[in-house]
Formats: sequence, C-alpha cells, structure tokens
Amino acid sequence: MSETTDQRTDETRATARPSRRALIGWGGAGLALGAVAAGGAVAMATGGESQDSGNEAGAVEFHGVHQAGIATPVQDRLHFAAFDVKTDDRAEFVQLLKDWTAAARRMTAGKTVGDGAYGGLAEAPPDDTGEALGLPPARLTLTIGFGPSLFEKFGLRERRPAALVDLPKFPGDNLDAARTGGDLCVQACADDPQVAVHAIRNLARIGFGKVAVRWSQLGFGKTSSTTPGSQTPRNLFGFKDGTRNIAGTETDRLDRHVWVGARDGGAKDAWMTGGSYLVARRIRMNIETWDRTSLQEQEDVFGRDKKEGAPVGKAKEHDEPFLKAMKPTAHVRLAHPDSNGGITILRRGYSFTDGTDGLGRLDAGLFFLAYQRDPRTGFIPLQRKLSAHDALNEYIQHVGSAVFAIPPGVRDANDWWGRTLLSEEA
Amino acid sequence: MSETTDQRTDETRATARPSRRALIGWGGAGLALGAVAAGGAVAMATGGESQDSGNEAGAVEFHGVHQAGIATPVQDRLHFAAFDVKTDDRAEFVQLLKDWTAAARRMTAGKTVGDGAYGGLAEAPPDDTGEALGLPPARLTLTIGFGPSLFEKFGLRERRPAALVDLPKFPGDNLDAARTGGDLCVQACADDPQVAVHAIRNLARIGFGKVAVRWSQLGFGKTSSTTPGSQTPRNLFGFKDGTRNIAGTETDRLDRHVWVGARDGGAKDAWMTGGSYLVARRIRMNIETWDRTSLQEQEDVFGRDKKEGAPVGKAKEHDEPFLKAMKPTAHVRLAHPDSNGGITILRRGYSFTDGTDGLGRLDAGLFFLAYQRDPRTGFIPLQRKLSAHDALNEYIQHVGSAVFAIPPGVRDANDWWGRTLLSEEA
Ligand code: HEM
Ligand code: HEM
Repeated sequence: MSETTDQRTDETRATARPSRRALIGWGGAGLALGAVAAGGAVAMATGGESQDSGNEAGAVEFHGVHQAGIATPVQDRLHFAAFDVKTDDRAEFVQLLKDWTAAARRMTAGKTVGDGAYGGLAEAPPDDTGEALGLPPARLTLTIGFGPSLFEKFGLRERRPAALVDLPKFPGDNLDAARTGGDLCVQACADDPQVAVHAIRNLARIGFGKVAVRWSQLGFGKTSSTTPGSQTPRNLFGFKDGTRNIAGTETDRLDRHVWVGARDGGAKDAWMTGGSYLVARRIRMNIETWDRTSLQEQEDVFGRDKKEGAPVGKAKEHDEPFLKAMKPTAHVRLAHPDSNGGITILRRGYSFTDGTDGLGRLDAGLFFLAYQRDPRTGFIPLQRKLSAHDALNEYIQHVGSAVFAIPPGVRDANDWWGRTLLSEEA
Repeated sequence: MSETTDQRTDETRATARPSRRALIGWGGAGLALGAVAAGGAVAMATGGESQDSGNEAGAVEFHGVHQAGIATPVQDRLHFAAFDVKTDDRAEFVQLLKDWTAAARRMTAGKTVGDGAYGGLAEAPPDDTGEALGLPPARLTLTIGFGPSLFEKFGLRERRPAALVDLPKFPGDNLDAARTGGDLCVQACADDPQVAVHAIRNLARIGFGKVAVRWSQLGFGKTSSTTPGSQTPRNLFGFKDGTRNIAGTETDRLDRHVWVGARDGGAKDAWMTGGSYLVARRIRMNIETWDRTSLQEQEDVFGRDKKEGAPVGKAKEHDEPFLKAMKPTAHVRLAHPDSNGGITILRRGYSFTDGTDGLGRLDAGLFFLAYQRDPRTGFIPLQRKLSAHDALNEYIQHVGSAVFAIPPGVRDANDWWGRTLLSEEA
C-alpha cells in the first residue's frame, strides 16, 4: 500500500489538485452539483483519483472527480456488462443506482456487499454471493455508463448530451443485435477475474427485476497499457498493442482528449463535467487466416515490426513513427493523430476467447474500449477512416457495438452514480 | 526455480522413485514401450514429474511417467479444446502428434514454437503466433487425451481401452452436441490465460487441415486445489470447492484412484499404463436462482457452511465430515467416498462465464474436469447417484460432456504424445 500512497502524493504535488480529503469535505449532492454547474469543476477535472494504481493486491480509490477505471493503470482482466432497464419507476431506478453505488464502494475496497453477508439471517439469501470471499481487492474498478436508449426513459430526453450520438453504420460492420447497445453499462476491471465476475454478478443480483443483463463480455487479457514504462501487452495477432496511448499520468492530455470539460455541450450538458464517453466494439479477429499470413504482410498491415513493435524503419518500440515509410493502408499510419488532425483516444481494450464458432474457428478477438471527450471528434471520424482504408479489415470484423456517456466520479460517501443526471435536488 | 527443485528433491526422496535423468536415459520409443508391456512400469507410475509446482513464473517439467496437468498443483486459468481429426492418413496423424509434442515441449518451457519465429523468412508465416512473447511460462501444462471416436479411425478399434466407455445419458442431462465429444482434447492450464490461449491456438494452427477445433472452453478461475495447505478456491455458488480432493503429493492415492496400472484392462490396454481417464462436463449453474435462495438452503444443499466450508455440525473446513448430520440429498453426503464404496476422483475444474444467454442470464458455471483410473468405477456410478438424488440438481444443468483416455507421459526428447498407442515399432 505504500506504493499507492507515494504515487498519490507525487500526483497531488505535480498537479496541485485539491486533496481527496478536501473534495470529500464538499459533501452533499446538491452542493457539489452547484459547483460543477458554476464552472468550478475545471480544477477538479485535472485532479481525480484515477491515477491510483494500488498495489497488486490493493484497492483503487472508488471516489474521485472522475470515475476510476479510465485513467487507472489497466488491470489484467475485464468483465463488462450492458444492462437494459426494466422498471419505469424513476424513484426505483434512482434507488437502484444508490444501491449499486453502495455495493461498488464496498466491493472496490475488497469488502462483501452488505456487512451482514454471513452474520445475517439464515432464512434470507446472503447479501453477497460469496465467491470473492478471502480474495484481495485486486485493484477492482467499477465504471458506470448511460447508453442513448436510457434517455428515452424517465423523462430524460432533454438531458441527453449532444456528444452522445448514435454510432453510424460503418463499412464492414456485421453487428449482432444481441451484443449491441444497452441502457447502462458497467465495466469491471481487476487483476483477478473472479473479482471482476463477482462484482458484475452482484450488481446484476441487486438489480433483479429492475434491470436485466443485455449482454456481457469477459476479457482475459489486457491489450493496452496506460502505464508508461511497463511492458506493452500483446494482442491476439501477436503485436504489442497500446504502445502509443494516453498515459494515466498525463493529466493535460486527459483533460484535452478524455475528460468532458465544464463548457462542453453547453449548460444542458454540465452534468457530464468530469465524465467521458465510451465506445465499446466487439471485434472478431480471424486468427486462422492471420496465422497463415506471412510475417512481412503482418508487419505491413500494422506498420510496425512484430517482435520489437518498432515503427517501420525504426529500431525501438517507442521511437517516433515515420508515417510515410508505412504503406498507405497501414493501421498505425491511418490511426495516428497526425493523419487525423490530432484525434486522440484512450484505448483500454481486452482480448477475448469465447469458445468456437460453428465453423471450427476460435471465437476470439479484441473487445475494443475507447474513452474520449466526444465521440463525434474521436472514435467516429477515426473509425470512418479505418473502416474504409485499413489493411487490417481483411482480418477483422466488428460484430458488437455500443456507446455510453460515462458520468463524472462519485465524490464521497453520500454521493451516487448518476446523481448529476438524476438528482431532483439539482 | 529453487522452490521447484527443492520440491522435486523431497518428492524423489519420499517415494524413492527413479530420478528424471534415469528415466530420460531409457531413451527410444520401442524400448520404453517394451518396459511398460513387460509390467516394468509399476515403479515408474508411482514417480512422475507432475508434482512439480514450478514457481509463479516458472516452468513445469513436460516430460515424465505421467502427463503433467493432472497431479500438478492446479494453475489459475484454463483453455480446453476438443478437436476432430480431419485426415484419414495415419502417417499424417502420427506426424501431427510428433509436431504437437515438439511444440508443447517448447511452449511449456516458455519458448516460442520453432526457434526461427522471428528470425525466419519474412515471406513465410511466423512459426509462432507471438502473443505470448515475453511472457514467462506461467506453469503451463498441456495434457492430451483421446476420445472414443478416435478409435473408429486408423484401424484403432481393437486398441480402444475397455475403460474408455461412452458415458450413459444421466437424468437431467441437456447436452449440446456442439459442446460434446471430440476425437482429441488438449487441456492447457497456466497461471496466465494468455499463455494457455496461446498454446491451444498454436496447436490448432499446427493442426490446420488435419484436425479442427470441435469446441473449446475458457476457464477463468480454478475451483479445485490439489495442493494441501493452500487456500481453497470458491466456485460461483460462493462455496469453497476442492476441500476434499486428492493432493498431487499423495502418490499412493494417485496410484490407487488416478493412474492406470500396468495390469488394468489386460495386455491389450497396456499402452495406457501411467495414463488416466478424463471426464469433462460443462455444468451450467443457474446463479440467478441460487442468488435468491436462503443461506440455510444453500448450506443444506452442500452439507457444508458457506463462510468457513466446514461440514454440518463441525467448526473447520478440514474437519472430518459427519455424513449423517447432513440432509440425505446433500451434495457432499452423496459424493463422499463413504457413501459410494470408496469411489474417489481427482477434481480439477474451472469456473466459466461465457456472456449471456437469450434470457438475460449469465451463461456461467463449472467446467468440471475429473481424472480417474477407470470411469466405470469413478465418474459414472458417482454421477448416476448424484443425478438422481443431489439437491444441487435444482440449480445446475449438465450441458456438455466428453470422455478421453489420457495416455501416459512423454518420457524424453525423442518420445511423443500417443506413441504407446500409435507407434509402428511396438
Ligand atoms: C482488432 C482490431 C485492432 C487491432 C488488432 C489493433 C491493433 C493495433 C496495434 C498493434 C497498434 C500499434 C501499437 C500501438 O500504438 O498501440 C495500434 C495502434 C492504434 N490503433 Fe489499433 N487496433 C485495432 C482496432 C482499432 C480501432 C477500431 C481503432 C479506432 C477506431 C484503433 C485505433 C488505434 C490508434 C489510435 C492507434 C495508435 C496510433 C498511433 O498513435 O501511432 N485501433 N492498434
Ligand atoms: C456445478 C456442479 C458442482 C458444484 C458446484 C460442486 C461443488 C462441490 C462442493 C462445494 C464440494 C465441497 C467441498 C469439497 O470437498 O470440494 C464438493 C465436493 C465434492 N463433489 Fe462436487 N460439485 C459439483 C459437481 C460435482 C460432480 C458432477 C461430481 C461427480 C460426479 C462431484 C463430486 C464431488 C466429490 C467427490 C466431492 C467430495 C466429497 C467428499 O469427499 O467430501 N461434484 N462439490
């Protein structure tokens, strides 16, 4: 735990952000919302607790200006769930969000849901399903998002942020409705998959009758890194992935490209200040075809070499790419900010393997997760270009898709997920 | 690595088995088979390398009297694949088994498949798919098995072991043909899922055109332990699982209940000496129903308490169960050897979560793996009883099934998977 504390202290020093204690001191819901609406959130947005890496067995702070699980150093495993809302009672929905927040607060601290889990009445179902009992917090983060369809409910239509657009259909998309969309999402990341699965499962249980899981995805291995200096993980095509990404410590770039600013979208969207937008794409990778492709073709497709991950013509992974040395259709050339007027997203994807399809091929690929300040200037134009020109398209297919507004962080023990959107006190 | 070595030394001392070097010295295929056929394998079968635990990042020895991955301390993650054989050319099939063995030998040592992986010709596909480059061996074990349907091919009918029976249909079975059967299986276990997935994927790649994946299963968390003293993992019903199991160090019990003996099945089945039989069952757990069940009912179902894992009326997990204190339908009471004339199997299962079914329920459960000396006196009578009486049946459903003959271990660098069955030199 000392590592965590050290890092937090450094971070605080570096950005001179308000200390956690001070933020917590701000207290009640209405007050904090007032501060945001008045534009007082700029300083807050540069802070946030999400840089905490915890230690391997440690806990990541749940409270903060931003939700954890975005700038947090990427954990090893993922369980992601999209939910549909089944209740049409707004008060019941708000209560669920409060109950979820309380459970998330406990679980991310490595505690069971409810403290009577096993001391409680034997005649009642346990408060907690129990399969994570005895396991450390494993850096669990839980991150909630609101899909476009949620804003059709509870009289929220007017509050749908301008940036939360429906994604267009891109060339090559072959989306499965059963893996697309959702009113809500929860991203659970942890270094132990049992901890991530436990968290989603308990939220689903708490939501019984009010929400239902629409689809879910297990990610067995991270494919990105937001931690400079750590070893870059490899994706299922065998390439280092996440070499060029936004680091969780680059607060300037996070503010510019990831966190929603106080004036983004105007006063109506002020509830999103400190939040972000998530695009999730289930991308099937045709690994059997890839595996029969020459090394040269594989390296041409990405514009990097396979072993080291260096850009074409360079020696080292972190050498600056020289885009013109790459084929015009190379993934990195097309995706690089210099080819896109500076477009920059934070990638936080995971590899998946979900058994086998009817044709004897592994149903494997990349569960692509990208955070950005605005999908209209982030994922959408980037994917328009990639879907039209990327050499990678011969080997992949987008089969699931969703977009979510990620509200700001939960400030303190009285705050709850979605308060800035749903609180009547605003 | 010193831990590994220490353990191995202790083990050698304890059982006075032949040292690994001596076994390796036995050399060539024909010779070793001769020794087995002559009944000389009894001493060998009590040895074996599978007790090696490696260290967290370490390698488990691939060679041995028994295949690793059975008595080996259970690794954290699983990728399991069943294959169908597509070639009808016996020589081609034998060559594939040799190629697989060579690849398995390298991968379990933390090496790439082929050493020219990236120094090779750029015009050729890489020898190795690359996604495990830079990762430690993570205690990877690869264990091969032969299904009943394999013996319909290559003139092997006469060599099908008597113990490799087709499993009967049990009450409540709801088997999906797409997750049932298979000519071959490979169980890949490792502490890093990327390492396990990489191994299966590379074997599938090497087998292209000769074999095809029939079904596969990712297991995200172990539910059993074969390591006394370690913390017992919990299954998705929140209960400690694997409390009473055969420990990888109990060579006597392994010989009695897990390893095929030199005289089992008569001379015709001598090729299986030192092998085992694996029953794999994909068991869906209805966790939504379970989660709404009272703690009392949950504990009654198993006959153990949830928090500690103690048998009814006892205080501690490892206290001796008093079966009569449990309900007659309690899982532990029914499954305990004392209720079954001593039936004892080695359980090595994993939890899975494969997204969501069409009804908004998590497709989650236990991928049950049981090793035994003979399924006719192991899994089959036990499951007959459980399927008829177990209170657990209300909350689970068996949806996939397979049985495999697990041949003995690969002795040395010249030996290969399946030699004792397929070698023409015998
Ligand atoms: C299965 C699909 C994909 C694979 C296997 C893949 C793989 C890679 C790899 C290996 C790199 C180079 C290393 C790095 O800088 O991270 C990379 C870079 C990148 N990819 Fe992808 N990618 C995929 C899909 C996408 C999609 C859908 C997008 C966005 C629409 C995207 C955006 C980027 C960006 C922005 C970079 C960094 C470019 C740079 O700044 O140099 N990728 N990707
Ligand atoms: C989803 C299905 C299953 C679950 C959740 C489950 C769970 C458990 C649990 C919690 C225990 C007690 C702890 C322990 O000693 O390991 C146990 C014991 C045991 N189970 Fe299961 N089990 C399942 C299916 C099976 C099946 C299919 C078999 C065999 C046909 C089996 C055979 C055994 C045996 C032999 C024991 C040890 C009994 C003893 O010696 O006390 N289980 N199981």
